[in-house]
Amino acid sequence: MNFRMIARIISFILLVEAAFMLPAMLLCAFGGQSASAIAFLITIGIIIAVSSMLWLISRNAPKGFYSRDGLICVGFSWIIMSLLGALPFTISREIPNYIDAVFEIASGFSTTGASILTDVEAMSRGMLLWRSTSHWLGGMGVLVFLLALVPISGRNDGFTMHLLRAESPGPDVGKLVPRMRETATILYAMYIALTVLDFLFLIFGGMPVFDAVCISIGTAGTGGFGVLNSSIGGYSPYIQTVCTVFMFLFGVNFTCYYLLFCGKIKNVLKDEELHWYVGTAVFAIAAITVTLLIAKTYDTFGETLRHSAFQVGSLLSSTGFATTDFDLWPSFAKAILFCLMFIGASAGSTGGGFKIGRGLLVMKILRRNVRQVLYPNRVQAVRLNGRVVDEDVLRNTNAYLCAYVIIILVSFLVVSVDGFSTTTNLTAVVSCFNNMGPGLEGIGPTLNYSGYSALSKIVLIIDMLAGRLEIFPILVLLSRSAWKRR
Amino acid sequence: MNFRMIARIISFILLVEAAFMLPAMLLCAFGGQSASAIAFLITIGIIIAVSSMLWLISRNAPKGFYSRDGLICVGFSWIIMSLLGALPFTISREIPNYIDAVFEIASGFSTTGASILTDVEAMSRGMLLWRSTSHWLGGMGVLVFLLALVPISGRNDGFTMHLLRAESPGPDVGKLVPRMRETATILYAMYIALTVLDFLFLIFGGMPVFDAVCISIGTAGTGGFGVLNSSIGGYSPYIQTVCTVFMFLFGVNFTCYYLLFCGKIKNVLKDEELHWYVGTAVFAIAAITVTLLIAKTYDTFGETLRHSAFQVGSLLSSTGFATTDFDLWPSFAKAILFCLMFIGASAGSTGGGFKIGRGLLVMKILRRNVRQVLYPNRVQAVRLNGRVVDEDVLRNTNAYLCAYVIIILVSFLVVSVDGFSTTTNLTAVVSCFNNMGPGLEGIGPTLNYSGYSALSKIVLIIDMLAGRLEIFPILVLLSRSAWKRR
Repeated sequence: MNFRMIARIISFILLVEAAFMLPAMLLCAFGGQSASAIAFLITIGIIIAVSSMLWLISRNAPKGFYSRDGLICVGFSWIIMSLLGALPFTISREIPNYIDAVFEIASGFSTTGASILTDVEAMSRGMLLWRSTSHWLGGMGVLVFLLALVPISGRNDGFTMHLLRAESPGPDVGKLVPRMRETATILYAMYIALTVLDFLFLIFGGMPVFDAVCISIGTAGTGGFGVLNSSIGGYSPYIQTVCTVFMFLFGVNFTCYYLLFCGKIKNVLKDEELHWYVGTAVFAIAAITVTLLIAKTYDTFGETLRHSAFQVGSLLSSTGFATTDFDLWPSFAKAILFCLMFIGASAGSTGGGFKIGRGLLVMKILRRNVRQVLYPNRVQAVRLNGRVVDEDVLRNTNAYLCAYVIIILVSFLVVSVDGFSTTTNLTAVVSCFNNMGPGLEGIGPTLNYSGYSALSKIVLIIDMLAGRLEIFPILVLLSRSAWKRR
Repeated sequence: MNFRMIARIISFILLVEAAFMLPAMLLCAFGGQSASAIAFLITIGIIIAVSSMLWLISRNAPKGFYSRDGLICVGFSWIIMSLLGALPFTISREIPNYIDAVFEIASGFSTTGASILTDVEAMSRGMLLWRSTSHWLGGMGVLVFLLALVPISGRNDGFTMHLLRAESPGPDVGKLVPRMRETATILYAMYIALTVLDFLFLIFGGMPVFDAVCISIGTAGTGGFGVLNSSIGGYSPYIQTVCTVFMFLFGVNFTCYYLLFCGKIKNVLKDEELHWYVGTAVFAIAAITVTLLIAKTYDTFGETLRHSAFQVGSLLSSTGFATTDFDLWPSFAKAILFCLMFIGASAGSTGGGFKIGRGLLVMKILRRNVRQVLYPNRVQAVRLNGRVVDEDVLRNTNAYLCAYVIIILVSFLVVSVDGFSTTTNLTAVVSCFNNMGPGLEGIGPTLNYSGYSALSKIVLIIDMLAGRLEIFPILVLLSRSAWKRR
């Protein structure tokens, strides 16, 4: 393990985190909330101190940097970022309990949006901005950001690849352009452009600037932290529609946008994952709309469609905003939302969940297996978008599914100690692990996670980070083999 | 596809089914329930007619018989068995609705034990015996029975192997002895011996003979149909304890018993799956007992332990008997039971579920994957009981997990249309698919499946059969590729 190089990268990452705290600090300072401003200042001081220490350790780091180093580095850096990012909340006493604060910011970085706050509106604006900023940073990834900016290790492309792979969602990371650093830069450029577009649309609808900033960066990261207790429910239908559209957009694989940008529209239209993403969305919206119409949940067709599309967009993209209390919907509508929680957004998007692309591979693996039973002598390859998928990717997808199921069951078991209902506990785990935010019953869209014990919160924090980092960085950190000296 | 040979095998299977109806018919005839006796008689007539027709079709069947033929044969025969086995219920008007009747007998053959009956005690004894008989036949498998008895195809061992593989539970079917037919015979001999032993222990406790017959054959098949509305709750603590012990015993891989019989105790003690089976049971019993003691659910420690061990034995072995309404237990205890529903019994036992052995392989696959990330240049094999597991078995295990997750989510979605609670629907699907029987909330141990619509019942019937046959026979029947002419 190349611990020195890992320390160096983390020292950079912490500086990025400190830099992203500045806007929130300035907002507090100029908004007259000096206690909160000081909390940010102290935290930034601590972060710079830790970063400097790591920098000192990291001198004379050897050049060798392998896949495992990438995973360990990403796992560690996200944990440290969460532990330090929680400090402003606790120092300012706005979230006095440190575990609650870590829960809140890990939920932010992992773009989950699950909250322990009962009254969001009681928080200072600086803290709300910091929560939402963490979504934006976590959405595309802090390491990707770093790689886009800083030439840490010169032209070492394998190095960049390992880090990008470890932090980016999806079964396989495609290079947009031959050089990884440029890929990272292009990704962030598109990310910023889409975020600004979202912001402008919201402002156009008359949303206050502060709200528009928080909601647009929260949507971009597919996070879900709002600034009002009613989430998005209190805004106009126009704003809700804008949010719906952008939630869907941020759940699309960013490679599609790059191809569009390059004029390769045909390739985008042929993308299998996109077909399934759109298909799932259309099916879910249609089925829920019909169910709600039959149950006469809302007065008009327009209102029904708006709420249905919003909630589907929110859960399919793993954002977690809400415009209505969907826990009151009929069982079938809730069942669809429950399934959406598992599926999640597209690979290579800022969204969480199992990912449409991975689900597609799982179905194809199954189909191949059935065919192999039927025609044992024929060699069968799994194809995605016409190309043969590497057996390594299939093996990883299978292992991912194994880990996914085991983690959900084990977490569910631990969380159940607190005594909430089966549905509450199960959806809490599924929702956190898939970076959604709200669940059903006790953690429905109008409620929050404050009732859980410290132990459950820690489990859910691990789930959120493991979900965002797609399990392996956290799993490697927890594995005995990683720490054995050989 | 060798349809003629498949028809021939099914014609034999139907005769076995008819033969197993005889005791129930005689019980009705001598018990004065002539209407029921006639219903059985008519059914037996129909079965013999269908069997003869299939026999006529099957003349001049070609010899070639492949893995796919085995799967199709098993899938078809279980469906036909269920469709015909339901007739006595409907003809006698004891279960007037045919879909309900098919649900009841498919639940029997698949050893699920899920019932649509609100008042079990209102049924005639013959019908109750037939329900329980279906458990016994389904537990070890009707094809295995046939293979043990009838030399359908002379000495063609590959033929026997394909059928046995398709019907037997577990990721890999081990031959006990070199010849498959002898293996089948030994399996049934052990099965009969253990059933008789259970019966004798029950009789010794003063249980009425009829009850003892039904309960012992229901335990043997890990089914779960009782003869009283209170399931096993109305019997003495001694009888409950006997049931607990035998439920655990029938959830053990029968290979262990054969090894014991041959004096190879060391091999049994080293069996990894057995370790996990016992470990899971001990952990679950201990955790639930402590939870119930803290919650003061029962008066004494003895009573608490008895109920806890019974319910764990019932769900771990996938039997589904109950001595108490565990839906009223604290959340943590219910969460453990929920997880047990997924795990299921050992491979090569009469129990259902995902199987301990398969779960073990899933964990090992995951561990190998983590190690491969850490040390990419080292070749890693997955070992079980010290031997390297074939990559084909691993691939099948992965495909099984894929199918398992997809089927549960899709079934859950369809069943949710009926409007029951999320937990009810989810546990209904999980319980039926894993051949348990009871679930939580709306289908808790004191309730039943009668409230579901016909569509949901059909989905659950498919789930029960797919679960018992370990998915692939049903999946092959449903796959387009199987029916394409090439």
